[in-house]
Amino acid sequence: MPYQLPKTMKAVAKTGRHAGLEMIEVPVPRPGPREVLVKVRANSICGTDLHILHWDPWAEDRMQPPLIIGHELCGNVVALGEEVEDVALGTYIAAESHIVCGRCVFCRTGRGHICRNTRIIGVDRDGAFAEYIALPAENLFAVPADMPPEIATLQENFGNAVHTAFATNMAARKVLVTGCGPVGAMVIPVAKAAGARSVFATDVSDYRLDLARRMGATLTLNPLRDDVVARVLEETDGEGVDVLLEMSGAPQAIEAGFRALKFGGEAALLGLPREPMVFDLANDVIFKGATVTGIVGRKLWETWYQAAGLQRSGSVHLGEVVTHRFPIDRFADAFACMESGESGKVVMLWEETTP
Amino acid sequence: MPYQLPKTMKAVAKTGRHAGLEMIEVPVPRPGPREVLVKVRANSICGTDLHILHWDPWAEDRMQPPLIIGHELCGNVVALGEEVEDVALGTYIAAESHIVCGRCVFCRTGRGHICRNTRIIGVDRDGAFAEYIALPAENLFAVPADMPPEIATLQENFGNAVHTAFATNMAARKVLVTGCGPVGAMVIPVAKAAGARSVFATDVSDYRLDLARRMGATLTLNPLRDDVVARVLEETDGEGVDVLLEMSGAPQAIEAGFRALKFGGEAALLGLPREPMVFDLANDVIFKGATVTGIVGRKLWETWYQAAGLQRSGSVHLGEVVTHRFPIDRFADAFACMESGESGKVVMLWEETTP
Amino acid sequence: MPYQLPKTMKAVAKTGRHAGLEMIEVPVPRPGPREVLVKVRANSICGTDLHILHWDPWAEDRMQPPLIIGHELCGNVVALGEEVEDVALGTYIAAESHIVCGRCVFCRTGRGHICRNTRIIGVDRDGAFAEYIALPAENLFAVPADMPPEIATLQENFGNAVHTAFATNMAARKVLVTGCGPVGAMVIPVAKAAGARSVFATDVSDYRLDLARRMGATLTLNPLRDDVVARVLEETDGEGVDVLLEMSGAPQAIEAGFRALKFGGEAALLGLPREPMVFDLANDVIFKGATVTGIVGRKLWETWYQAAGLQRSGSVHLGEVVTHRFPIDRFADAFACMESGESGKVVMLWEETTP
Amino acid sequence: MPYQLPKTMKAVAKTGRHAGLEMIEVPVPRPGPREVLVKVRANSICGTDLHILHWDPWAEDRMQPPLIIGHELCGNVVALGEEVEDVALGTYIAAESHIVCGRCVFCRTGRGHICRNTRIIGVDRDGAFAEYIALPAENLFAVPADMPPEIATLQENFGNAVHTAFATNMAARKVLVTGCGPVGAMVIPVAKAAGARSVFATDVSDYRLDLARRMGATLTLNPLRDDVVARVLEETDGEGVDVLLEMSGAPQAIEAGFRALKFGGEAALLGLPREPMVFDLANDVIFKGATVTGIVGRKLWETWYQAAGLQRSGSVHLGEVVTHRFPIDRFADAFACMESGESGKVVMLWEETTP
Repeated sequence: MPYQLPKTMKAVAKTGRHAGLEMIEVPVPRPGPREVLVKVRANSICGTDLHILHWDPWAEDRMQPPLIIGHELCGNVVALGEEVEDVALGTYIAAESHIVCGRCVFCRTGRGHICRNTRIIGVDRDGAFAEYIALPAENLFAVPADMPPEIATLQENFGNAVHTAFATNMAARKVLVTGCGPVGAMVIPVAKAAGARSVFATDVSDYRLDLARRMGATLTLNPLRDDVVARVLEETDGEGVDVLLEMSGAPQAIEAGFRALKFGGEAALLGLPREPMVFDLANDVIFKGATVTGIVGRKLWETWYQAAGLQRSGSVHLGEVVTHRFPIDRFADAFACMESGESGKVVMLWEETTP
Repeated sequence: MPYQLPKTMKAVAKTGRHAGLEMIEVPVPRPGPREVLVKVRANSICGTDLHILHWDPWAEDRMQPPLIIGHELCGNVVALGEEVEDVALGTYIAAESHIVCGRCVFCRTGRGHICRNTRIIGVDRDGAFAEYIALPAENLFAVPADMPPEIATLQENFGNAVHTAFATNMAARKVLVTGCGPVGAMVIPVAKAAGARSVFATDVSDYRLDLARRMGATLTLNPLRDDVVARVLEETDGEGVDVLLEMSGAPQAIEAGFRALKFGGEAALLGLPREPMVFDLANDVIFKGATVTGIVGRKLWETWYQAAGLQRSGSVHLGEVVTHRFPIDRFADAFACMESGESGKVVMLWEETTP
Repeated sequence: MPYQLPKTMKAVAKTGRHAGLEMIEVPVPRPGPREVLVKVRANSICGTDLHILHWDPWAEDRMQPPLIIGHELCGNVVALGEEVEDVALGTYIAAESHIVCGRCVFCRTGRGHICRNTRIIGVDRDGAFAEYIALPAENLFAVPADMPPEIATLQENFGNAVHTAFATNMAARKVLVTGCGPVGAMVIPVAKAAGARSVFATDVSDYRLDLARRMGATLTLNPLRDDVVARVLEETDGEGVDVLLEMSGAPQAIEAGFRALKFGGEAALLGLPREPMVFDLANDVIFKGATVTGIVGRKLWETWYQAAGLQRSGSVHLGEVVTHRFPIDRFADAFACMESGESGKVVMLWEETTP
Repeated sequence: MPYQLPKTMKAVAKTGRHAGLEMIEVPVPRPGPREVLVKVRANSICGTDLHILHWDPWAEDRMQPPLIIGHELCGNVVALGEEVEDVALGTYIAAESHIVCGRCVFCRTGRGHICRNTRIIGVDRDGAFAEYIALPAENLFAVPADMPPEIATLQENFGNAVHTAFATNMAARKVLVTGCGPVGAMVIPVAKAAGARSVFATDVSDYRLDLARRMGATLTLNPLRDDVVARVLEETDGEGVDVLLEMSGAPQAIEAGFRALKFGGEAALLGLPREPMVFDLANDVIFKGATVTGIVGRKLWETWYQAAGLQRSGSVHLGEVVTHRFPIDRFADAFACMESGESGKVVMLWEETTP
């Protein structure tokens, strides 16, 4: 007997051009010819979702409500578009949130993560905080049956951490992570798995530094209390770190990170400064002979394979980073928790039903 | 009959902590055990020499007059320190101006160009604008007998151009050079020799743009007249250039260069902004997935071998970049010419005598 | 008025499990939903086609006649499958001959050229030596309107040369090309465009060495007459070449090529030795600290963009490599010409009709 | 009171052009101007030493007895040549055994490990199995005071393992080590520290496979019993390993290793096949799109810094690889143990005396 789809479903949506989110009842979407329908099991909240909640200028500029929001999810495939051949019904999946065009020079040369025609679920089309979501088949990434939904939903965001870390050469090197929000926390075990001999981590929140330590940081520093640059130099025989992983987007953290970077070092930048900032290119990049790489999204699909490998081999465990869980009906509490600064990843769970 | 050394020699020097330069008469230096004595045939003027002339804050902070200045030279070896075994008397040489320690982690891992103990001739010890200079034997680089002195003296500065260009991948790619002073002009034929399919060049001086065209630029743009970003996008199907070579240090040029850089592009920065500047890391580096490399000096000695190869094979000709020649006695005119902005490289020639 | 398709067409085919080829009349194929129909304007002959002509063991093992053969082509799109949205009727195209699965780990990580599920046109499904061919839309690569058909049909094969050359670092380096068949001949201008300071070329055919010189080789050597290793060492101050591009598959050429390779050098191997050969791994690879890369097909689609760029910028001209042209009806003569060893690329032209 | 040097010392030497080794009494060497004198604390035996013991054709061809043999050592600096400025008396050191020229293109471009003028201690000049050895100051590498001599003497040989592993990209990848002699055993923890998600190891000796497991191998296979290729494919979903580290030089191991290598994989070859071997370049390298790198010695001095970092951070522990210790007087027993195949590294200890 085939899976019986309901007519309507619950979803968390932005219903108008103003702050706030609502749980609404909408028709279950139909997958297009090369799409699948996924029954969602868990979602997680990303910083982007907070911008949408508050309807900040970025959201105002980019989004067209009404729209179901959210882009981190896991679930099971419950229906297939007519041209989808290589996906089995029931497959347990995480999903890439960037839907790329597949035809531009970037997509055709293995660099789909910088496709200029990217559409993001939950931002440019209906998103993942819903009982069901229709997704292009090629955006799925199968996850192991025994991976808990609260971990499976992290895969897309974990990919940011993997992409950042793997943009540098870690083996036998000293690393500084500036910013220990969820992605910063997740990059720590990746750096260690990739061979880093020490991982220093900074954040202004002691809660997050505590999380960083549980994720494996060698030393944590709070710039509200510690002289980050001096301490890092002290720990590195005055040389500084070989690698900077900038996860905060905070100008002070960026500045301190570059000051603490060794001559000839590498920096990978994921955190987005809100606006142009004063930057000492001469001393922090040029005289140092440093290399700086901007990181966006995940390499399609290299990052996903790397992320899967790191977890399957046991090199990286993400369990600690999930600090709070809510049933989806309490989405407002989940968002509040995420905003408190006293959380790692906040996961929202859908009721598990037997189809 | 051995070469007869005079007791004294002429030299251009900074004699006190104030603006200006003087031609003085000083004893001919004696080479140390692992040094050689070089009879200078030609010198060329670098931007650094202008800072020293004017005794600007950088010079004030770093230099200890009295000091012979200058670091670009060519000449012949006329005496050897007692432990120098592998240099023949008479060898025609150019010289690396950075004297590195040879013992630090950078020197021991093929990255002497970022040695923290570097001493620069003409800045930290007596320099090259003199009849004779004592130099460590390992700082010599032999040049072909038929290379004119006015070209041989450019080798060190040409190395900056080679180092910058070779820090990126040029083959079959579109390149933007911002800043067409002497090093910017010299980087143009290197980019073409390394496979660039087009080289756009910008400068505020039409004199220099004219030089850039003679050095091989595909298209030149003057930001005082042209909308650089718009024109580059127009010439690249709206995509921008694959590679930015920033040779100016001017904030506006840096900003325009990054705006004109393709997603996923590479930037190599040699020009030094005088002070920290407002920089849009989010849009110009991170979202773009760009890679930025700071360039300092020359790779020891990889850059020198590359530079030699480019010229020996005929891929790069530097003749056009030498726009003015002066006898050394007219050093003041030479400096004035260099400052006018209406020059490429300005060369100063020593009288050729038969020893 | 839409383009009027005939019911049947001419095609060169392998009709049974034996040597020989026949011109046959068959129905014009219909493109699948994501395919297009191309009216062929020119074809070129590859070594693989000779193996098929002679029904050698490789062909015997792999092919299932009856089958239209050939995989090098250019032409115009004359009909679209119903799901093809981004191709305009009339587009003038060359085509990638490898149809890859798009779903395996290689395809999903930018390495489709090593997809294990690759199907090659003219080998695993009907090929290009036909008036019309149905091809997946994603296998097309648009070429400029003013590119002659005899050049446009070379693009796929030219891509082998580009892929080989770009697997190594050429800038300011000395290169040896062993084997100057068509791909060997085409790799010479690519090496020069990518910055090689000298390109030595070897072949046992003086005809091909003459072609190599016309394509830009600095020095040509015939191992039947010249001591290749000795001559290359002589021309390189006893050091050998920095880069070996092996295009012949001949054991003697491979052996000589590695002997002539500099310590620390790079070799890219495209030529396929017919069987396992005696190879001196210790002296030719390990002691030398050499790097060896196997090359297959073209990077999808990076190589195609690079190839297009090299030609559009004028860095590479392929005109000289086309030494013979035949109307398609004289395909037997064309194959004989190709086998004579006294040819570069042999092109077969279809009658140009106005649709 | 300065350290009192004796007039003569004990040393293990090759005294004539025949098999065998002798303990002899010779004058203590005097360091040259840029050399130091080291009082040796421990030595370890390398495969090369066995070739010398047996006076095999390689030794016959290269060596000029009488000569003190041995190149793995640790000890303390007890005297300085007159020009040595930057080494403190008493420094506890390991040493690079390759004395390079410092002036050739390889030495001047950070590739001294392939210097053609290399002289190896214990092979080309007096070696390390002696109470004292004179060494160029630049060949020293200081080790931590608390590193046991039996570990400090392994550093040079451990460098081979580090150089091999770091020639490939390990992070989140599957690795096969063929050959678990001492260097093969030591490469296992390096691969894991550099991020390998699984390390398969092969050897014909169960003793060595047991050692490989203690060093961290995920799975060990004995080709005398196991179908190595089949088992590796089985463990890797039929894909093969991403990286092959070939440490044996045995043709069968090399062949199996390449069969088990994934398409697009990387191989680093350290083991030296005794003679040219039959190798399937077409299937094992070219069709696979594989990359193969030959490894010789250690990168000067990058490998030494990496090796130090791996141990200092606790990522790699070498204790298990030392399976046997002998006083130096029992050097004959030490060599016999090394030849038995039932050993890891065999260390010979000098009596510790208080100077």
